[in-house]
Amino acid sequence: MGKIICVGLGPGDPELMSLRAARHLSVARHIAYFCKRGARGQARTIVDGMIPTGAVEYPMDYPVTTEIPLGDPRYNALLQTFYDDWTERLAAITKTDDVVVLCEGDPFFYGSFMHLHARLQARVEIEIVPGITGMSGCWTQTGMPITWGDDVLTVLMATLPEEELRRRIADTDALVVMKIGRNLDKLKRALEAEGKLEQTWLIERGTMAGQKIGPLSEATDVPYFSIAVIHGQGRRP
Amino acid sequence: MGKIICVGLGPGDPELMSLRAARHLSVARHIAYFCKRGARGQARTIVDGMIPTGAVEYPMDYPVTTEIPLGDPRYNALLQTFYDDWTERLAAITKTDDVVVLCEGDPFFYGSFMHLHARLQARVEIEIVPGITGMSGCWTQTGMPITWGDDVLTVLMATLPEEELRRRIADTDALVVMKIGRNLDKLKRALEAEGKLEQTWLIERGTMAGQKIGPLSEATDVPYFSIAVIHGQGRRP
Repeated sequence: MGKIICVGLGPGDPELMSLRAARHLSVARHIAYFCKRGARGQARTIVDGMIPTGAVEYPMDYPVTTEIPLGDPRYNALLQTFYDDWTERLAAITKTDDVVVLCEGDPFFYGSFMHLHARLQARVEIEIVPGITGMSGCWTQTGMPITWGDDVLTVLMATLPEEELRRRIADTDALVVMKIGRNLDKLKRALEAEGKLEQTWLIERGTMAGQKIGPLSEATDVPYFSIAVIHGQGRRP
Repeated sequence: MGKIICVGLGPGDPELMSLRAARHLSVARHIAYFCKRGARGQARTIVDGMIPTGAVEYPMDYPVTTEIPLGDPRYNALLQTFYDDWTERLAAITKTDDVVVLCEGDPFFYGSFMHLHARLQARVEIEIVPGITGMSGCWTQTGMPITWGDDVLTVLMATLPEEELRRRIADTDALVVMKIGRNLDKLKRALEAEGKLEQTWLIERGTMAGQKIGPLSEATDVPYFSIAVIHGQGRRP
């Protein structure tokens, strides 16, 4: 029996993957990764040039990304079928071989693999290799520490309601906001209302080609791989 | 002119360092790291067997760790002098050579290097290599994802006042608590009061030799490298 090895690849720069991720990749015979239909996907892009000759690739292309709103029952139904199908396909491969599943960032931190993990864990052996999170890659690129001393760090999704964003923005020392995309204006209003917009950095495509870093207040449109941060100001001897 | 290269080494397992960290280390001629007086320190332990022949080591041993309470003015004075001294020593080396500074975890996430960084950044070129955080290593070892969907993650230091711990424990989906040590009983009371003690995991020495994982409620004494987590329960199609 083979197993599933889910490797976190880190924030985007290929040299930021772990030695273990690189080792698993170097001997992989079956490599699966999530992607948008018709695109190669960020995880596959990171390992470009590192796929062993003869390895079989399994692009797991989402049936839907932003075409249907999250709240629509069809959205959940489509994704359930998608995860169920890939659960069967990956489990079938493990009858004879290992499968390496590529994930950007850290697999257990807001990752898509978790939905396969939940379905596969009772059936197949699974190894998870943690990765450097996208947020670590991004705050490192700002050149300033994110947290000091007793700072509280809050990680928020910009998909939350505006009032909830405001309440939590007001009540933390350091802040990371992910899933900004279409929620940019809402996030800006929430930060502005709490007097924190001017301290907020936006990092687009952190550690990747085309990286951009600047004040969130100046952003008018953000790609999917964007993270906003406010640095903590805690104790510093 | 040389530069300072601070490499995040990840949570403890040497194979979880990044390819970039390993590359910098493999050609390092001057290697500095923090440690407790008389001990080798976690960062140096991670790279055991990886130090190039002939490299000079600079153990930066703290003048004080827990002998003086944090609030005592002598604590701050001793640490200031310590960081000031090492700032001069490392800056002097960079006149002719690079210095690699080893840090466990991710350097800009509650790391000690930040205090050198603040002093050195106007004087010397500094490169920071992010690392897998201790918390990522720990939640991966629990075998369960830490955050799903729109979950809010809060990272707390157990050094905070009990009321503050209670308030924040009650108001988050996923939780990470660091700096537990002498604050174990206080943390337990705060979790218990909010009805969350039974969901809390304690990971001691995560990804390292001697790793222990279990319910926080059963812990009576915890080493410095311990992290408590509560997993989020967000949306999962």
